[in-house]
Amino acid sequence: MAQPRFLVVADGAFGPETSKTANCAIRYVPERVAAVLDASAAGRTAQDVLGFGGAIPVVATLEAGLALQPPPTALLIGIAPRGGRLPDAWRGWIAAAVDRGLDVWSGLHTMLGDDPDLAARARAKGVRLFDLRRPPADLPVSNGRARLVDALVVLTVGTDCNSGKMTAQLELLRGLEARGVRTRFVPTGQTGILIAGWGIAVDAVVADFIGGAAERMVLEAAPGAEVVLVEGQGSLLHPGYSGVTLGLLHGACPSAMILCHKASRRLIGEYHPGEAWIEIPPLAEVVRAYEAAASWVHPARVVGVALNTYDLPERAAAAAVERAARETGLPATDPVRFGPGPLVEAIARAAADRPAAGSIPSA
Amino acid sequence: MAQPRFLVVADGAFGPETSKTANCAIRYVPERVAAVLDASAAGRTAQDVLGFGGAIPVVATLEAGLALQPPPTALLIGIAPRGGRLPDAWRGWIAAAVDRGLDVWSGLHTMLGDDPDLAARARAKGVRLFDLRRPPADLPVSNGRARLVDALVVLTVGTDCNSGKMTAQLELLRGLEARGVRTRFVPTGQTGILIAGWGIAVDAVVADFIGGAAERMVLEAAPGAEVVLVEGQGSLLHPGYSGVTLGLLHGACPSAMILCHKASRRLIGEYHPGEAWIEIPPLAEVVRAYEAAASWVHPARVVGVALNTYDLPERAAAAAVERAARETGLPATDPVRFGPGPLVEAIARAAADRPAAGSIPSA
Repeated sequence: MAQPRFLVVADGAFGPETSKTANCAIRYVPERVAAVLDASAAGRTAQDVLGFGGAIPVVATLEAGLALQPPPTALLIGIAPRGGRLPDAWRGWIAAAVDRGLDVWSGLHTMLGDDPDLAARARAKGVRLFDLRRPPADLPVSNGRARLVDALVVLTVGTDCNSGKMTAQLELLRGLEARGVRTRFVPTGQTGILIAGWGIAVDAVVADFIGGAAERMVLEAAPGAEVVLVEGQGSLLHPGYSGVTLGLLHGACPSAMILCHKASRRLIGEYHPGEAWIEIPPLAEVVRAYEAAASWVHPARVVGVALNTYDLPERAAAAAVERAARETGLPATDPVRFGPGPLVEAIARAAADRPAAGSIPSA
Repeated sequence: MAQPRFLVVADGAFGPETSKTANCAIRYVPERVAAVLDASAAGRTAQDVLGFGGAIPVVATLEAGLALQPPPTALLIGIAPRGGRLPDAWRGWIAAAVDRGLDVWSGLHTMLGDDPDLAARARAKGVRLFDLRRPPADLPVSNGRARLVDALVVLTVGTDCNSGKMTAQLELLRGLEARGVRTRFVPTGQTGILIAGWGIAVDAVVADFIGGAAERMVLEAAPGAEVVLVEGQGSLLHPGYSGVTLGLLHGACPSAMILCHKASRRLIGEYHPGEAWIEIPPLAEVVRAYEAAASWVHPARVVGVALNTYDLPERAAAAAVERAARETGLPATDPVRFGPGPLVEAIARAAADRPAAGSIPSA
C-alpha cells in the first residue's frame, strides 16, 4: 500500500523528551510526516523544537493540518499518556480525524479498533485504525531457543526508560549496513514497529508471553543475518517496567548488550516530575546487573555504552562520553551526535569472533 | 452466594505434579470438591493419587460426576495446558458441562466469557463462567509505593515454577495466625484466587502492569496487617517466566523473601520432559540472585527456605532440609511435611524487628 502521510498529534507535549513517537517518526521516516499538531508550538518547525526535522511545520488544529498540500492521509498519535491508555479527552479528536477520512495509527495500550464507536465511524468512512501494540494471539512461552541462532544477537539495555535504546539500534543498523554486515532490526515497541513495519510490542502482550514474543522475533529475523539488533525496553532498575525488561532479555537471549543512558539524568523516571526516587547507580554497576541477570539464562556481555547527550553542550557531551568509557572500560559514544563508530566496531568484532553456533531447533 | 461444589477436571493428568489447581483445591478447600474427573484414575480416591484429600472420588465421565449426591454445581478446570490457552479439544466438554447447568471456573489465559459460543450457552442455561485470570482494566504502573506500607511484606520466590510458592504462603498464613500475628495473604495466580476469593493473576495482565497489579494488592492488603504474604510466581531463572517474577518482586516491594525449592529437581522446568536445559544453581547462589534483583528497587533479604519434598522418603526429606539450611545459613523446612515452624519464627522476628515505616502515600 502507499506510504501514509502523517499528521502527528503531540498536543501540548511536542518536545525533545515528551513526544517520543513523534520525534522518532520525524528522525527516521520524515518523508511520511506532513505536520505536527500541537497548539502550544504552532507556527514553529520541527527543527525549531527538536533541533532536527527541518521544515516540517507545527499546526494548531486538525483543520490547519488538513489544509496542507498534499494533505495528510493518516493521524499518528505521537505522544503517550502515562500507562499508555486512551484518555477520554482524546476520543473526540480521534473521532473527528476519522470522520474527516484519516486513518489512525496508534501505539496506545487501549486498542482503538476495539472501541465500538471509533470502529463504527472507521467502517462508515472506509478508513483504518492501526493499533501498533496489538499483540498476536498465539505467542509461545519462551525457552531459550533464541540462544541457538547463528547470528550475533545484540540487545540495547538501559539505565531507565526513554534513554535511547531504539535510536541506538537504528543508528547501529545504519552503521553496520554501511560496513557490509548483514543486519536485521527487531522492533519491540510501537515506535520501532511504526518505523520498521513489523514487530511485536512486548510491553503489550499478556505477561506470560513477554519472552515468547522476543524469542519468536529473533528466530524470525536471524536466518541469513550476521547481526540481529533487538530494541530494548524499560530498565531492570525501573520499579514499573523491570519485568518487561527481564522477560525481553531472557526471551531474546542476546550474547552482546549495549548499555544506553541519558547522560544528564540522575533519577530513574525523572521526566515524570515528583514521582522519581531511585538514583541511577554508577554505569559499571548497571553493567554488572545486566550481565548477572543475563547469566541466569544465557551469558551476555555489555560491549559498549550509548549515551544520549542531546541536552548537553558539545564539550560536556564529549566529557560524558569519555567518562562513561573510563568508568566502564568499554567503547562509548553518543551514536546520534558523534556517530555510532566505536559501537559498530565492537559489534562487528563480536560477530566475527562468534563461533559457529548451534542451529535453530525445529521445535 | 453459596459456595460452589466442584467437579474438578484433570483428565489424563491427575497427579502430584501435573494438576496444580486441582491439588490445591483438594488441599485447601476440600469441602468444595465433589469429585475429580480423570478417566485414567477413575475408581481411585484423591488420597490414593495425591497422598491427601481423603475419600474425594475420581470419576471417569461428566455423567458419572453429575450422578453424585449431592451433585456438583460447577466445573473447575484443574489442570493447565502449556501456556495456559484453551485447547480446542476442551471446548466440547466445557460446553457439555454448561449445557448440563454447571457454572465453569477457569484459570486459563483464554477467557471463556469471551468465547461467543460458550457465552451464549451460558446465557441460555443461566450459568456463569468465572475467568479467574481476567485482569482488571485500570491497573497502574508500579512505582515502589508498596515499600512504604507498615506491614512486613513477604514474597515467596522460587528456583523454578511449580515448586510450592503458594502452598508455602498458605501454610505460613495458618502458622502466623495461630501465633496471633495479623496476617493477610495476597493471591497472584488463579489457584490462589480460587482459594482466597480475591486477587489478580499477575501473569495474565498486560506486561506493563505486572508490577502495578502487585502494588495495588499489597496496598489493599496492608492496612491493619502486621504481615502481608504475597504469593510468588515463576522464577528469575526461568527462561519463559522471569519477567513476571521480577515485575512482581519490584511491584510488591517485599522486605523479606522465602526461597521455595522442590528438593528432588535438578533442571528448571524438568516436569516438561525434553524441554529442560538449565541446571538449578546451588541455593545460596539463588538467594544472592534474588537479593541482588530486589536491591535494584527496594532491598529485601531471603529469611528462610521452604522445600517441597513430597516425592522423597522421610529420611531423605529431613536430610534435604538439613542440607538447605546448611548451604544457605537460613532456617529451612518443608512446611507441609514438617510444619512451617522455623519460617513462622523467622517472619515473626522480622516483623517485630521492623521499624515503624513510612505511611502509604495518598497518591
